Amino acid sequence: MKPIDTLAILGVGLLGGSIGRAAIERKAARKVVGIGRRPAMLAAAERLGAATETTTSIEMGVAEADLIVVCTPVDRIVDSVREVARFCPEGALITDVGSTKREIVRQLGGKLGRNVRFLGSHPVAGSEKSGVDQARGDLFEGQRVILTPTRSTKKADVELLKRFWKSLGAETIAMSPERHDQIFAAVSHLPHLVAAALAGSISASDLKHAAAGWLDTTRVASGDAELWTPIFSTNRDGVLKALARFEKTLTLLRDAIERDDGKALTRLLTAAKRNRDALGS
Amino acid sequence: MKPIDTLAILGVGLLGGSIGRAAIERKAARKVVGIGRRPAMLAAAERLGAATETTTSIEMGVAEADLIVVCTPVDRIVDSVREVARFCPEGALITDVGSTKREIVRQLGGKLGRNVRFLGSHPVAGSEKSGVDQARGDLFEGQRVILTPTRSTKKADVELLKRFWKSLGAETIAMSPERHDQIFAAVSHLPHLVAAALAGSISASDLKHAAAGWLDTTRVASGDAELWTPIFSTNRDGVLKALARFEKTLTLLRDAIERDDGKALTRLLTAAKRNRDALGS
Repeated sequence: MKPIDTLAILGVGLLGGSIGRAAIERKAARKVVGIGRRPAMLAAAERLGAATETTTSIEMGVAEADLIVVCTPVDRIVDSVREVARFCPEGALITDVGSTKREIVRQLGGKLGRNVRFLGSHPVAGSEKSGVDQARGDLFEGQRVILTPTRSTKKADVELLKRFWKSLGAETIAMSPERHDQIFAAVSHLPHLVAAALAGSISASDLKHAAAGWLDTTRVASGDAELWTPIFSTNRDGVLKALARFEKTLTLLRDAIERDDGKALTRLLTAAKRNRDALGS
Repeated sequence: MKPIDTLAILGVGLLGGSIGRAAIERKAARKVVGIGRRPAMLAAAERLGAATETTTSIEMGVAEADLIVVCTPVDRIVDSVREVARFCPEGALITDVGSTKREIVRQLGGKLGRNVRFLGSHPVAGSEKSGVDQARGDLFEGQRVILTPTRSTKKADVELLKRFWKSLGAETIAMSPERHDQIFAAVSHLPHLVAAALAGSISASDLKHAAAGWLDTTRVASGDAELWTPIFSTNRDGVLKALARFEKTLTLLRDAIERDDGKALTRLLTAAKRNRDALGS
């Protein structure tokens, strides 16, 4: 891929910082401008090789950008994109890294003007950690990035973003924002909710005895609460539907335990094991 | 510790095989007799260094044993211990590795005769894997083993088992069978149930998109269904109580999402994160 001349990253935390590091390490952009509100974080981003230059001004930061990646929390993405669109060059492409897509794409669809376009991305990477000091240049290697084009998306923009993420080591697939949100309700948002209910409902005296199984099952509950609240809020329908399916299965399990119906319980546990085993360890 | 002369292990799967390997590698017993029903499994146990000799006969296998560790599934432990007690030398000590303790200890309490005693153990080790080929001599290193003495337990037996497990690299703590089952309902059995409900309720098309978070949260659901069914059945009260607490917290989370109450949701997620972060990654 022909390298991007100027890449701007708004929000240089774990994801934004990793995009910057990967782009610099892999020479996917000539300049990487890190934009953020906290000078200390921007200094860390430069020191860690996540940006070639930094600024606290969105206006200055995006002034020459060909591609802008918005890495603000999910509930600020729409406003961030609109502000970027006011100041970026005519014809620039804006994307994001938000974990929900339907609301964001719906609010931004075809309303940016000056031939500035938005096309949603969701890199399925990251972790329960956060902050630019956790950023890694190989975070996207072999990972998947979902692109969420709509009917009004230009093919050339899909191609540009595919090449961009590929240049950071990721593979891309495209799907509608609605389908994206259904899937991630099931594979990410619901597990987070359930892990939080497990971690939140244990007593202090029991907690001392938690071992590997509890640690695995609740790991994602370490995620930043401030980041997760807007994820649930912007994918409410999807999460509530996935939760209803989960509760139906949990009720079947509970009923089998209450009735001491070993055959039904074994059948349910075996079906769950089959799904889990299909994906390896 | 003075090594045990003859250690007998009934059931040489993951746990029994690991006990045998650890005892042989650490010279904690002069002879390690592996007892099982399937000759192929016994041959594998000898080949893998999990037993110095093997037999399909309980009567022959325990005839000279000073300590017998019963590693059969939870719903067979009581019968296994009673059978071992018929044939083992007078004065021998029997223990087990069952994940639930209240039912087992209640049924076995002080009824074995001929000065043969049972004292329950639960090594908090193992994994979603199973089978003697997964056995490891270091499985218990740094791990915890719960001993569940009752009022009729002899102090000398607690001391003997403490030394035995310590000689395999583990540390021991003692508590009542009732307290044990409450704790493990919360830290192990409930997480297994919840992981099974997650893994069991996902659609095939969503499953293809599962990534690290889903894999962590559902990992324990790979456990053998035949082993887990009797765990739930013998700790029904504990599991149902832990499940009720979980569902209460999950309902609070759902209500906050339904009402779009970001403050309440953040507060609940933060409380969960605090519990999870207390235990490291």
